[in-house]
Amino acid sequence: MTALTSRHAPTPPTVPLDRLFRPSSVAVVGASANPGKLGSAMLTAVSGTTPSVYGINPREDGAPFHPTLGAAVDVHGAPIDLAVLCIPAEATPAALTEAAGLGAGSALICSGGFAETGEPGAALQAQLAEISARTGIRVLGPNTSGFFRPDGVIASFVPTVPEIRPGSVAVVAASGGMNHALSFLLSERGVGIGLGVGLGNSVDVSIVDVLRYAGDDPTISAIALHIENVDDGRALLAAVREVSTRKPVVAIVVGRSDVSAFAESHTGSLATSWRTSRALLAEAGAVIVDNDFELVDALTVLSQTRLAPGPDPAIGVVTAQAGPGLMILDELQTRKVAIPRLADETIRNLSKVLPPLTFQENPVDTGRPGPTFARVLSMTAADPQIDAVAVYSLAEPGAIDLGDAVRQSRVTETCPVVLGIGGPAGVVEGPVRNAESVGAPTLLSPTSLAVGVDALVRDARQRFYAADAPVAIPATTAGAVTDGLDEAAAKDLLDDLGIATPQRRVCRDREAAHRALTELTKPIAVKILDATVLHKTDVGGVHLGVSTPGGLDAALDALDAIGAPAYLLETMAPPGVELILGARRDPAFGPILVAGLGGTAAEAIGDISIRSSRLTVAGGARMLDDLDCAPLLNGWRGGPTLDRAAFARVATTLIGFLEAHPEVEDIEINPLRLTTSGLIALDAVIVPTSTSKGKQS
Amino acid sequence: MTALTSRHAPTPPTVPLDRLFRPSSVAVVGASANPGKLGSAMLTAVSGTTPSVYGINPREDGAPFHPTLGAAVDVHGAPIDLAVLCIPAEATPAALTEAAGLGAGSALICSGGFAETGEPGAALQAQLAEISARTGIRVLGPNTSGFFRPDGVIASFVPTVPEIRPGSVAVVAASGGMNHALSFLLSERGVGIGLGVGLGNSVDVSIVDVLRYAGDDPTISAIALHIENVDDGRALLAAVREVSTRKPVVAIVVGRSDVSAFAESHTGSLATSWRTSRALLAEAGAVIVDNDFELVDALTVLSQTRLAPGPDPAIGVVTAQAGPGLMILDELQTRKVAIPRLADETIRNLSKVLPPLTFQENPVDTGRPGPTFARVLSMTAADPQIDAVAVYSLAEPGAIDLGDAVRQSRVTETCPVVLGIGGPAGVVEGPVRNAESVGAPTLLSPTSLAVGVDALVRDARQRFYAADAPVAIPATTAGAVTDGLDEAAAKDLLDDLGIATPQRRVCRDREAAHRALTELTKPIAVKILDATVLHKTDVGGVHLGVSTPGGLDAALDALDAIGAPAYLLETMAPPGVELILGARRDPAFGPILVAGLGGTAAEAIGDISIRSSRLTVAGGARMLDDLDCAPLLNGWRGGPTLDRAAFARVATTLIGFLEAHPEVEDIEINPLRLTTSGLIALDAVIVPTSTSKGKQS
Repeated sequence: MTALTSRHAPTPPTVPLDRLFRPSSVAVVGASANPGKLGSAMLTAVSGTTPSVYGINPREDGAPFHPTLGAAVDVHGAPIDLAVLCIPAEATPAALTEAAGLGAGSALICSGGFAETGEPGAALQAQLAEISARTGIRVLGPNTSGFFRPDGVIASFVPTVPEIRPGSVAVVAASGGMNHALSFLLSERGVGIGLGVGLGNSVDVSIVDVLRYAGDDPTISAIALHIENVDDGRALLAAVREVSTRKPVVAIVVGRSDVSAFAESHTGSLATSWRTSRALLAEAGAVIVDNDFELVDALTVLSQTRLAPGPDPAIGVVTAQAGPGLMILDELQTRKVAIPRLADETIRNLSKVLPPLTFQENPVDTGRPGPTFARVLSMTAADPQIDAVAVYSLAEPGAIDLGDAVRQSRVTETCPVVLGIGGPAGVVEGPVRNAESVGAPTLLSPTSLAVGVDALVRDARQRFYAADAPVAIPATTAGAVTDGLDEAAAKDLLDDLGIATPQRRVCRDREAAHRALTELTKPIAVKILDATVLHKTDVGGVHLGVSTPGGLDAALDALDAIGAPAYLLETMAPPGVELILGARRDPAFGPILVAGLGGTAAEAIGDISIRSSRLTVAGGARMLDDLDCAPLLNGWRGGPTLDRAAFARVATTLIGFLEAHPEVEDIEINPLRLTTSGLIALDAVIVPTSTSKGKQS
Repeated sequence: MTALTSRHAPTPPTVPLDRLFRPSSVAVVGASANPGKLGSAMLTAVSGTTPSVYGINPREDGAPFHPTLGAAVDVHGAPIDLAVLCIPAEATPAALTEAAGLGAGSALICSGGFAETGEPGAALQAQLAEISARTGIRVLGPNTSGFFRPDGVIASFVPTVPEIRPGSVAVVAASGGMNHALSFLLSERGVGIGLGVGLGNSVDVSIVDVLRYAGDDPTISAIALHIENVDDGRALLAAVREVSTRKPVVAIVVGRSDVSAFAESHTGSLATSWRTSRALLAEAGAVIVDNDFELVDALTVLSQTRLAPGPDPAIGVVTAQAGPGLMILDELQTRKVAIPRLADETIRNLSKVLPPLTFQENPVDTGRPGPTFARVLSMTAADPQIDAVAVYSLAEPGAIDLGDAVRQSRVTETCPVVLGIGGPAGVVEGPVRNAESVGAPTLLSPTSLAVGVDALVRDARQRFYAADAPVAIPATTAGAVTDGLDEAAAKDLLDDLGIATPQRRVCRDREAAHRALTELTKPIAVKILDATVLHKTDVGGVHLGVSTPGGLDAALDALDAIGAPAYLLETMAPPGVELILGARRDPAFGPILVAGLGGTAAEAIGDISIRSSRLTVAGGARMLDDLDCAPLLNGWRGGPTLDRAAFARVATTLIGFLEAHPEVEDIEINPLRLTTSGLIALDAVIVPTSTSKGKQS
């Protein structure tokens, strides 16, 4: 959740988040001895897990209760690290002020009733923000069920949290409920949790703070982000870029469908789009997952192993059963993971240890696994094309312990291995532990294995591209853009930027038009030139395929009939595939680049590719490969093939132009036609900031 | 897997599949006392689970071994129900002949080395098919690891099968490996198995046979199909249509990506497409899932509860935590499940028992669940719009047993309830059992809950539409189609079929063209009329927006320059959204209808909708709602809105035409333009059977 009111001012660096997440003293304000109350559940949770705990409640007697926080501080003899406030919203600002005044390092505010309920809760929340900014006390919440470190403090009123398996994954969730839901899911699947945080309304401690904190925490090996809304998008991307160089970051973003009515009651309105958030987080280096089971599979793998950055890591698939192998292959290929045919030498070597009837090119179908399984693994991993190996088998306790085979192969010393094992939990458990001991994660179904391997690949691929330096903004000769550019002027600007446009003439009368006809390569298009006409084709303002003086006169007659103030004559571009490429300003992320197929279909279908202003040349070159319609760009049915480097030049130029021109809100080339002679901009619209209207991607 | 050679002839009805799947006597041919051998594993498996078991091996002594099958039959005193053949491929035909001659009712053939390996295995497989067809012995396999009924016979050499939980789901898998993998997954998630079958090469017993058998078996409540390839598509659809009226059928189809190289070694080449199989199975009533975890979630729900058929069942979502509730809402809406705002009266009633700060319109956010939870459920279920209720909460053992709350609410007596509970397995177990006792399934994550509820909804929705009678084939006045129809002739045929086309004139000379110009509503299109020109626009054969004699002359000049034998002059249709609608013949399923957006993008993206020749008017009306681009048909940016009934008339007419015209291979309207004045066919291609080229959807 996100603060609806103000962002926190810079916090004094003297209050590290360890005082919140690794407190040695905790006071529960509103603690209760009545087991039915939340203040009692919270007191119980922290009591077992923190050295010094104080319950603050004037109506309770005896240890650990004290009538006021001041009394507890007196007894403790030093300021308290963490004050947990389990009191109604109205009483919270005063209690927070008191805690800050008594030197408390941090506060966890569980109550709801703040900005998520509209006014007057929003005013109360603004007070919390102001107190935190002024005093430096770190505040987690309000409106969260807390946080936990299963091998340390548990500050959550969900009573089953102590059963969460300790481990090395940090969960950073927008909501307290999702922090718990995801942590339980991971734990039940054998993935231990090092830190679980529900941010709630994020009045002070933000997703960026916790992400960076977890990035710096040596006990954390991988980080899960659950995102409902993005506030400071640029800070979030910077943190993801930085942290993901050291640790895998897996993110799930809510809001694919319109959930605004419910979300507003929960988090406030959405500032940016689901699609934009996902695309830019991926560009920054996060592995984006679609749902909670993908999140679990991705973290099962990435909490244990990681590939070196690479442009397109290739996977060797070894399977003991053909049917599951086919499922895994299909899922991996659908996810665009490379499964190359193994080298001839590898195939020759494999044929010496495998039965003759099985497929051995990749996937490698071993038949029923036996004593040669470790050698098959080693041979596959040793193939020069292969970056990691995915292995599937049903558990066959009499025949082989797959985890032990991985261990004995010593393959993981040079090549990550991800296992998939099917069978009863009791039988699978031993192999899972054996594999874990050499850093080989195990997944429990064919789909899960493919999802986990895809996460491994995307983590490596995205880091490879995110590591590139962004393109320097090119100098343009273009002056400040003013309102009302007509098509010819917009194309002149593209010419200045080095983006190809058709050969053309602006003609004010028939004589000029006939002269232009003799000069231009034919056939030509004859168009109305009028900045006020937005849909030229719809009004009969575009005449194509004109080659003769007679044809030109007929076209000009038609344009005159609709009152054309001037004519634009252009050499027609060769046929091809039409794209849209635009740079615009996103409320959360700033300048972004949006590309898709031309026409309205791309936007209706949502088949668009989005990048940030940190676009690199390599990133621009593969931007369109995100699209479902990417096959159209690769010589579909004899058509032209996209020159990736040329597209990257246009894309980086356009985003650079937007960065350099604050007076421009939006610049869109529509269509940008892919032809056999290259990319050519057939029309462009440039919207100055003052006249811009809201757009969503 | 599918037989590469011949389909089995009709089998004598006197051999029911119970002799295969519920045998009272089993002989394992190739049984062994050596624990390392498959023949030993199979003997062990059947021995514990069948009344009379015989091991056939001349080299083994003592019970249960006999030197020949004949000796075992003598001892048994009657023919054996099931002969399991664990012997090399080459020896199998003779053993099968022997078993059939001794009156065995059925055989399970485990060995590989048949059609999946090419020749000479294919010839061996053809022998098996011939023996089965001639003698009537039912044959499962070859190339399968077997089958099992966890509360009955286990005929599988995977040693952990006895740990599979008995229950009421039938798994019918193309491959033995996937039968085991899916059965273990279901079992581990608490979904018991009644029958698990791996079909292997399907020389006799086919997916259709086992589907119908499971449909008739009163111990089976739901059926999972795993499909790698479709052989007799029409028989499969008929079986799905019939069985799904009585029991839910959930299907996963492999082959989204190109897996042909590996699949061929495993199953033979693919006759139809992934997309076609999925679309037609769904139309017939199967719930199609994308992967194995969706399959488990769908069966968790559908093995316990089912909705009455309905056009668009609506769900009430009740959640104790807003964050998971938002995830569930988002996933359900993305899957196009209806989550209507509750009735005012329901909201009023809920407000009396819920805290004032939570959202109560649907989802119903209860806050921490308490004693009123059962009443909240009852109120939501009682809302007149709501067909089923989805409930999510973290397990809170101190606060509430969610399963018990469902039981006490008695809601499931009138309205299906699906639960989602997060928490440690040991804590969740009790509520799961309590919910199960009243037929309320439980899923363990927000995504799983949404997937399971979506399956519930799709099962009910698809049955509703599948129950409609298909449209009677309309009589057409169109005679037999011959080769070389030009555009005008194709449009005349559409006119005969009652499909709107533009007003037009075929003109052989300029004089006729100028006369037509005076008669037609302007502006007009002037086109080359030549059946041999496939891409008219590319050769400059199309001139749009002609209104004047001068414009017409310019266009005719251009057409003459490219050698047009005749001109087609047409009134231009209003602008709109261009669709493609075609009827063609699929090698597995026969006549199918394919629709998508016009242009090449739809096919490249794969955003197409497919239906069978059983298309109903209601099915035709909603056919395009499958498409990702469906928003374009609903007044996108002020554009026209599709008249669903009108589209259904065109769609049913087209498929009916193909059914009635065996001489036509393929008829495609491209584009079929959606305009403010309705649907209009702007061009059509009709391919006679003799000249057809292979097409794939």
